[in-house]
Amino acid sequence: MRIVGLDPGLRITGWGIIDIDGNRMRCIADGVIKTDSKRPLAERLVQLYEGIEDVLKRFGPIEAAVEETFVNKNPNSTLKLGQARGVVMLTPARAGLSVFEYTPNQVKKTVVGSGHAQKEQVQMMVKTLLPTAQIEIADAADALAVAICHAHNRNTPDKWGGIA
Amino acid sequence: MRIVGLDPGLRITGWGIIDIDGNRMRCIADGVIKTDSKRPLAERLVQLYEGIEDVLKRFGPIEAAVEETFVNKNPNSTLKLGQARGVVMLTPARAGLSVFEYTPNQVKKTVVGSGHAQKEQVQMMVKTLLPTAQIEIADAADALAVAICHAHNRNTPDKWGGIA
Repeated sequence: MRIVGLDPGLRITGWGIIDIDGNRMRCIADGVIKTDSKRPLAERLVQLYEGIEDVLKRFGPIEAAVEETFVNKNPNSTLKLGQARGVVMLTPARAGLSVFEYTPNQVKKTVVGSGHAQKEQVQMMVKTLLPTAQIEIADAADALAVAICHAHNRNTPDKWGGIA
Repeated sequence: MRIVGLDPGLRITGWGIIDIDGNRMRCIADGVIKTDSKRPLAERLVQLYEGIEDVLKRFGPIEAAVEETFVNKNPNSTLKLGQARGVVMLTPARAGLSVFEYTPNQVKKTVVGSGHAQKEQVQMMVKTLLPTAQIEIADAADALAVAICHAHNRNTPDKWGGIA
């Protein structure tokens, strides 16, 4: 069973592909999609869409797990993140994948054991659980963490708004 | 020259198609795309994408004007609106249209003459300027107002982040 984890951002969106087989997990690939901040918003959203589409075509995951956006106190940042997140949710859904959402706390709790873990602890744990991961940029580790979270929770009752 | 105006919302997105020929304007069609609030977010975003794609295919506009989202004080509402807006910006851009953004104040100022006009004044003016408009739901009038705003401003220097 192949899963893609996605950590949405307008500037950088992290992605990570893992295979799960019973309790075993293996990282297949990970990376980030960057958009050009000098380009207009609509064009950046197209870059993001096509970047994710390319990852889905290359690796063929059948389920997607997306991190629920941290709601920033700055409304303009929240709006930007929302716009990116809309595209990050849309792309796998249009490609026929089931899409699941997890809060940062759910991700931390699953990966590290505590909902209040530091970002660095999560990244270290991701490297330990998935030794073949490249993780050249931290956002890729965050995406792999969401994928791991989904791997552990996907058989629990569907309460995260997944679509079948 | 055919323009589509779009007023983004997760629950209801308004759209309006106008033709411009010199100083003359004519409404070709207008309506709304509704998403099913009982469905998961990813699925609603697909409904929104496909609804807009259908309008673009049916009427073939070559430029799109999108209302800049009002930044709500409630971060969760802002995030929801952002997610819908990301899809509303993406869809015409992927279809090859140039996409332009206008703030609510720019729209009001162009259509009514005052940036502080009431919503009802804008809607009445839209009906006066575009007598063939149907406007069964107010969101369609808001979308037509953005289209009118673009018709008046599209030849001014590109300062609204349009993509060519």
